Amino acid sequence: MERPRHQGMAKNTYMRWRLPLVCLLWEVAMIVLFGVFVRFGPEADAHWEEEKREMNLTSDIENDFYFRYPSFQDVHVMIFVGFGFLMMFLKRYGFGAVGFNFLLAAFGIQWALLMQGWFHSFKSGKILIGVENLINADFCVGSVCIAFGAILGKTSPIQLLIMTLFQVTLFAVNEYILLNLLHVKDAGGSMTIHTFGAYFGLTVTRILYRPNLEQSKDKQGSVYHSDLFAMIGTLYLWIYWPSFNSAISDHGDAQHRAAINTYCSLAACVLTTVAFSSMLQKKGKLDMVHIQNATLAGGVAVGTSAEMMLTPYGSLIVGFICGIVSTVGYVYLTPFLESRLHIQDTCGIHNLHAMPGLIGGIVGAITAAAATEDVYGKEGFIKAFDFTGTYQTRTPSVQGGFQAAGIVVSLLIAFAGGALVGAILRLPVWGDAATENCFEDD
Amino acid sequence: MERPRHQGMAKNTYMRWRLPLVCLLWEVAMIVLFGVFVRFGPEADAHWEEEKREMNLTSDIENDFYFRYPSFQDVHVMIFVGFGFLMMFLKRYGFGAVGFNFLLAAFGIQWALLMQGWFHSFKSGKILIGVENLINADFCVGSVCIAFGAILGKTSPIQLLIMTLFQVTLFAVNEYILLNLLHVKDAGGSMTIHTFGAYFGLTVTRILYRPNLEQSKDKQGSVYHSDLFAMIGTLYLWIYWPSFNSAISDHGDAQHRAAINTYCSLAACVLTTVAFSSMLQKKGKLDMVHIQNATLAGGVAVGTSAEMMLTPYGSLIVGFICGIVSTVGYVYLTPFLESRLHIQDTCGIHNLHAMPGLIGGIVGAITAAAATEDVYGKEGFIKAFDFTGTYQTRTPSVQGGFQAAGIVVSLLIAFAGGALVGAILRLPVWGDAATENCFEDD
Amino acid sequence: MERPRHQGMAKNTYMRWRLPLVCLLWEVAMIVLFGVFVRFGPEADAHWEEEKREMNLTSDIENDFYFRYPSFQDVHVMIFVGFGFLMMFLKRYGFGAVGFNFLLAAFGIQWALLMQGWFHSFKSGKILIGVENLINADFCVGSVCIAFGAILGKTSPIQLLIMTLFQVTLFAVNEYILLNLLHVKDAGGSMTIHTFGAYFGLTVTRILYRPNLEQSKDKQGSVYHSDLFAMIGTLYLWIYWPSFNSAISDHGDAQHRAAINTYCSLAACVLTTVAFSSMLQKKGKLDMVHIQNATLAGGVAVGTSAEMMLTPYGSLIVGFICGIVSTVGYVYLTPFLESRLHIQDTCGIHNLHAMPGLIGGIVGAITAAAATEDVYGKEGFIKAFDFTGTYQTRTPSVQGGFQAAGIVVSLLIAFAGGALVGAILRLPVWGDAATENCFEDD
Repeated sequence: MERPRHQGMAKNTYMRWRLPLVCLLWEVAMIVLFGVFVRFGPEADAHWEEEKREMNLTSDIENDFYFRYPSFQDVHVMIFVGFGFLMMFLKRYGFGAVGFNFLLAAFGIQWALLMQGWFHSFKSGKILIGVENLINADFCVGSVCIAFGAILGKTSPIQLLIMTLFQVTLFAVNEYILLNLLHVKDAGGSMTIHTFGAYFGLTVTRILYRPNLEQSKDKQGSVYHSDLFAMIGTLYLWIYWPSFNSAISDHGDAQHRAAINTYCSLAACVLTTVAFSSMLQKKGKLDMVHIQNATLAGGVAVGTSAEMMLTPYGSLIVGFICGIVSTVGYVYLTPFLESRLHIQDTCGIHNLHAMPGLIGGIVGAITAAAATEDVYGKEGFIKAFDFTGTYQTRTPSVQGGFQAAGIVVSLLIAFAGGALVGAILRLPVWGDAATENCFEDD
Repeated sequence: MERPRHQGMAKNTYMRWRLPLVCLLWEVAMIVLFGVFVRFGPEADAHWEEEKREMNLTSDIENDFYFRYPSFQDVHVMIFVGFGFLMMFLKRYGFGAVGFNFLLAAFGIQWALLMQGWFHSFKSGKILIGVENLINADFCVGSVCIAFGAILGKTSPIQLLIMTLFQVTLFAVNEYILLNLLHVKDAGGSMTIHTFGAYFGLTVTRILYRPNLEQSKDKQGSVYHSDLFAMIGTLYLWIYWPSFNSAISDHGDAQHRAAINTYCSLAACVLTTVAFSSMLQKKGKLDMVHIQNATLAGGVAVGTSAEMMLTPYGSLIVGFICGIVSTVGYVYLTPFLESRLHIQDTCGIHNLHAMPGLIGGIVGAITAAAATEDVYGKEGFIKAFDFTGTYQTRTPSVQGGFQAAGIVVSLLIAFAGGALVGAILRLPVWGDAATENCFEDD
Repeated sequence: MERPRHQGMAKNTYMRWRLPLVCLLWEVAMIVLFGVFVRFGPEADAHWEEEKREMNLTSDIENDFYFRYPSFQDVHVMIFVGFGFLMMFLKRYGFGAVGFNFLLAAFGIQWALLMQGWFHSFKSGKILIGVENLINADFCVGSVCIAFGAILGKTSPIQLLIMTLFQVTLFAVNEYILLNLLHVKDAGGSMTIHTFGAYFGLTVTRILYRPNLEQSKDKQGSVYHSDLFAMIGTLYLWIYWPSFNSAISDHGDAQHRAAINTYCSLAACVLTTVAFSSMLQKKGKLDMVHIQNATLAGGVAVGTSAEMMLTPYGSLIVGFICGIVSTVGYVYLTPFLESRLHIQDTCGIHNLHAMPGLIGGIVGAITAAAATEDVYGKEGFIKAFDFTGTYQTRTPSVQGGFQAAGIVVSLLIAFAGGALVGAILRLPVWGDAATENCFEDD
């Protein structure tokens, strides 16, 4: 492990107590809050035998665990290995990427279980958790990992933990507005995870702008081996994305359909990424950055619509477009954002998450607005959009309008929240890294 | 990323438009064909509620998704991470291996969904797809990845895409002949995937013979880190092979049995591989190439018989033999094939897929021929070999004969198809790599 | 691949026949024993249709395969990729770690299927196996991988195989005493896998003490890339540990609960590991060894109690404590064990498995003793602790006492067995590695 030698002793001593204190205090807070609020949901509680009788279930296999646990584990791999390794491309920051990702995700899932629990699983004063809560916590932390991609290599672990605390909170609020107040569908999180996470992170990195970062340009590059490690991250994200988009869809056809749509979209996306990467590079070579990132945009962009009747060819079209948009973004937009708008986006999340997330929200709105009882079947139509209770008179086109509103809300909360959190992170108490030490493992 | 410097600008400019054009045109073709033909199958369609009533299913858990999706994801990892990383052993071709594998697989699964769909899932003018189709598409592409192993480092991406197009087509034809016309069992694909894929690839590489490739001998070696990356591929293939062989077996006991047989065969294979690797090397050292490859031969060789009542000790015997055959092949046969038959087999697929695939076909024929109602039970016997309808009078020995015929058909189509495709690839329009640039990332 | 040059030819020639002979003879023995004893269990046998009728099952989905196969595959990844890569941190011993782990595990699972089969799945002269047996065999081998961590880099492959043979045998005996005679619960193996495996390995390494090993100190370190490979191991162990602890729990709520408890404990453990690692290091830097190992201690420590009503906050508390204990162990205890007690613990298994395993046993005893019908429900209480038949009058506090006795038995068998096996391994016939060649791939 390479270590920079010229960091001031004073600062390090200072940090020596700051990080441990934050970690320990927060973990104690988690224990207290879990002790007061969190209990097992009915399908994980030892009273399950009684529950089974009440719900008229004849077999243990109908426990939600068996519907969702395999997808949960795939999502878990995506968050910890996928995102962690994808960010490993920096030649001297492999540990920082995967290690800090590990730390923020481990903290984030606990806080997310609480925040999302209060909003969605709160019954008689307790948060009742099951496997679906674990998936949702991983999803929430996924949006933090995305934002981390924008500021990778430029922040201290304490700053990351502070950002995680606030971002998880804002994520849960935004998610509540979308899913509960607007009654919007977003199972794969094009809006709640990708659009929100990416624009939040981009706003934060704009506020943390470092004018002299150019000097570290040599460390911002990748080397052969760091690129191979990053490919591990890419492949696991690509492979497991069908699980991501189907993990919390309704049992049965919806989960099945979401997996197929995502599989198709991702396959198409690889071909257009390769096409445009080769076309836009001098000498027709492939750029590894594009292969590592833009190939995944198709998964992001069907996040909202995958569980709908998007159809396989619809998915191919979405993937086709996103491979192009994302690759073009890496070539032309990222340099523009940095030089003109002072947005230093280390991993290019604007191309992988922000734009495809927006496209995903729009595709979702259109697909919802175009839904008919003919295509879905009478029962399927009601089930797919949950047009029951207060919403039983909502029409597809109204639903499409609310879906579009969901995009706007996500953007607003991302910008406002990112500005607030960026300002907080600028406070001089968090042990900010010196510019010359950016992108270095320490 | 190391880049060769002396490639002619003219040729690269030329390539700059060729690859993008092929990718984009083909993806457009896929979208059109999917639009015309591909729809969701009944278990992924929003009409599932009605379907459930018709099929008398009481729970969403009986959707095929829950029987096969975990295995699908394991297979998906094998195709994209397993094969991709296994081929990473070349010291200067890590990206080529994993990147081109990614490209051809992403294209191949789309074309396979269509080809296999027309043969097997075509109803009233539409291809109805579900999770089993995704697995079969991955399987089909698996045979292309195998063939890729023979020509690794010696072909341009366009050549690979052309090969994929033809090989997927021929795979689907061969599979149709075996499964539908001969009514042969081959759930793990010893014949359809491994025998076909390997002899196809070996024929192609024979026709693409490069007399002066010896000069690149230094680049054909591995280095410490490339070998460690290759071990990631090996381990994931080894771990998930039970899922591969059981993924499309009948629900219930057949999937269960296929996983157990494969687990046993693979375990035995490791021990004989280590034994013979150590015995045949000077100084008694282990050769990493053997550990990376021959340990997997046991999985290939129970591909046909794993879902049959091969029994655990039968599986151990098959694995025992294949570890030996495969390792001996690497030591003696590969050099012979190259020097005498001019077959340049970069990854040694003859030892890992061709010979074990043949053994697998033969073991399947014998196991089928030896089946009795006593061992399988009356119902189990009929179910295991699907002796219903036209086939209800077929006896085990006749089945064994048809199984053997399946091997011959696979070989014939592989040789003829490989010769044809090899000839096509020799056409001077695909941007063939110069011999001095082989085995280099570019 | 780097190879040491100065090893005597005589010794290598000698080894050249020793290792192959052992591997081949043992595999032949496995085939004979499997042929005599091992058959498919009722859920993997072709008679399943009849079995289904007898058991009144209406759907194939109730085959145990679908309850456990996804968890099995996760455990399989942990044993072969997780443990293998975690031990890759040594800069010149990557292949030794992952390759020998592969060899011993492949042999061990076969022997474990037999040993555990005789004790637990023996019916009318046959061992009837199913997916649960595969998981248990992987678990048993897990304890060998743990012990391997203590002697990593210091033993020949033959010594490892000999150790595996004995350790698997002793594991099965210990497991039988705990689960059957003491009627103890230990689904995630805090006692049977971790406590037993770790103290066994520590005893063996004590007996194999090499006074001059200090001289190889430089090879005992890690380098940047070996540390990144080790992180792959860490992350897969961390991610899949919920599957490990829930894999063989009762269907339904118990599996569900075990996964949730483990998820929580692991998350808490990361934060306290980071806190103490940063606090105890000079300059407040994080030590990669801690991040790679101590973050996993939380999974070990809920191995016994995860399927009980430990509750999420209880799990957080356990994880909180274990991150601290394990990290402190790496900083202070490992050097002490080496210098004073002559226990050379290459991977620090005392900190990751031994102490957390003990804590896990104690937490399990307390959780069992504290169980009430109120918390579990009347049926849930009986089901959770299997208080039926001879045990229907056992009270929670008595159960707690037996759980505690299980810890003591595991320790005694580990010490006695480790001493015996260590003495056997000192016999001069196994091709012991010279001290100057330790920690080198060969």
